[in-house]
Amino acid sequence: MNVGIIGLGLIGGSMAIELRRKGFASQILGVESDPVNAAAAEKIGLADKVVGFEECVRESDLVVLAVPVGAAVKMLPQVLDMFAEGLCGDGAGPGSEDAEKRKKCRKIVIDVCSTKEQLVRSVHYHPLRGRYVATHPMAGTEYSGPWAAMPGLFDGRACIFCNVEESDPAAVKTVESLYDSLNMRPIYMNAASHDVHTAYVSHISHITSFALALTVLDKEKNEKHIFDLASGGFSSTVRLAKSNADMWVPIFIQNRDNVLQVMDTYIEKMKAFRSAIADYDDKAVRELIEDANRIKRIIR
Amino acid sequence: MNVGIIGLGLIGGSMAIELRRKGFASQILGVESDPVNAAAAEKIGLADKVVGFEECVRESDLVVLAVPVGAAVKMLPQVLDMFAEGLCGDGAGPGSEDAEKRKKCRKIVIDVCSTKEQLVRSVHYHPLRGRYVATHPMAGTEYSGPWAAMPGLFDGRACIFCNVEESDPAAVKTVESLYDSLNMRPIYMNAASHDVHTAYVSHISHITSFALALTVLDKEKNEKHIFDLASGGFSSTVRLAKSNADMWVPIFIQNRDNVLQVMDTYIEKMKAFRSAIADYDDKAVRELIEDANRIKRIIR
Repeated sequence: MNVGIIGLGLIGGSMAIELRRKGFASQILGVESDPVNAAAAEKIGLADKVVGFEECVRESDLVVLAVPVGAAVKMLPQVLDMFAEGLCGDGAGPGSEDAEKRKKCRKIVIDVCSTKEQLVRSVHYHPLRGRYVATHPMAGTEYSGPWAAMPGLFDGRACIFCNVEESDPAAVKTVESLYDSLNMRPIYMNAASHDVHTAYVSHISHITSFALALTVLDKEKNEKHIFDLASGGFSSTVRLAKSNADMWVPIFIQNRDNVLQVMDTYIEKMKAFRSAIADYDDKAVRELIEDANRIKRIIR
Repeated sequence: MNVGIIGLGLIGGSMAIELRRKGFASQILGVESDPVNAAAAEKIGLADKVVGFEECVRESDLVVLAVPVGAAVKMLPQVLDMFAEGLCGDGAGPGSEDAEKRKKCRKIVIDVCSTKEQLVRSVHYHPLRGRYVATHPMAGTEYSGPWAAMPGLFDGRACIFCNVEESDPAAVKTVESLYDSLNMRPIYMNAASHDVHTAYVSHISHITSFALALTVLDKEKNEKHIFDLASGGFSSTVRLAKSNADMWVPIFIQNRDNVLQVMDTYIEKMKAFRSAIADYDDKAVRELIEDANRIKRIIR
């Protein structure tokens, strides 16, 4: 199968590596709008060919949108339009007389973004909605760009499929086999719950990490001290603060309401901690810590 | 040299492993008040002998206080008293006529705690103050107890020495060679700045992690979702929330003022983030993230 990957960064690039390695893709066409990244992706050999957006959509059986979610929301309807406009390989045009032909379209587009509601909403009424499968592979690092791509990134992690009932069953099946080849566990959820749960678990941890970096950089003017005093604990807690603004700005904006809700709870917890310490209340501090320790049961 | 280690947990136990391995200690006497931990420490073989507090102080040339800082503040004057009361090995008693003998005391006591001001203050006027060296090896994991002890824990990390001018130069030299055998870099600081800087870098990251765990456990009632949606990012950010209350309660209480200050800055940053997101202000969110990204320059 020809796989087109739009965005050869951490996720797109790592997918390219694995899909070729596991034999899922016979050819990988890559699209990369940033010229430096495009050159790097070619040099590293992530894609067999780095091509333009249109060529990629035309020549691929399966298109992966691996761009920040702000860009993906614009590209997704374009890709489905191109599928409909006879770029589908079976010559179906935009006219209603070609509706039957369009139905036969076998091309598939997926996204790998961290928020889902706006994406699924953007193509809800598209005649080729069925050819889109919304997925979120729960894998990543704090690095970005083609040089961050790595084999094994997805191994053993969960991949969330959203609103599969809106996708053609055959398309879902193909995408399931794609993620199966990446050794990911599929989980099914509707887009709205996905966005709630990722805000609760993933998005908030990025925000706490950004805020930690801002705090330490603000209070501790002496960078040498930060370096010296940063035991492993600080480094792991602040790790996500290296994450890329291009990716995270649209996530926070698109998932605003859920993110604000969880931030409010977080600020409350922080204040509870603050008053326990301010009151020299050993017992309350201990209770908060032991309550937090319950996370051990869930996270190794 | 006979080394006595009071508290055979993560830090004490790891020191025991390394000091024997590197040949710094010819014999290690351990003290462990918790009977389960004592049995584990003996079984693992962390110490050559697990003994009582008095025997340990009497038989050791160098005593390491590797207990939570609340307990250390009580033990430190006791140990120096025992040094003075003729347990020093050279028979000096408490009377002033033995002042000369006391001066000859060659025994050393160190602590390895995360806050320093109360400790150094507790023995500031002690006649044997010089035999105490205040140190803070900047190493650790989120685990505790003898089974958490591991070789290599200290390797390449910084060790802070506080108020060395109050310690006998020969004692400082011996302790420097101890940490040199653990392959640690010495850094010198007064106790007050130590407590400020560790609040800024280390203590706040524990609090943010505890608050994150509390938030996620509160919002996300479905533990299966936490498990599934926790990509590596969440796990590393929440890792410190597994840390032990016995260790952290006294740290936060003893370092209250510095900790509150940095928490206030943290809450401000969080609120700045919150209003940028609430206002759909892409530009402000981007600026905050890019500002936080500066941490890359300091932390690999």
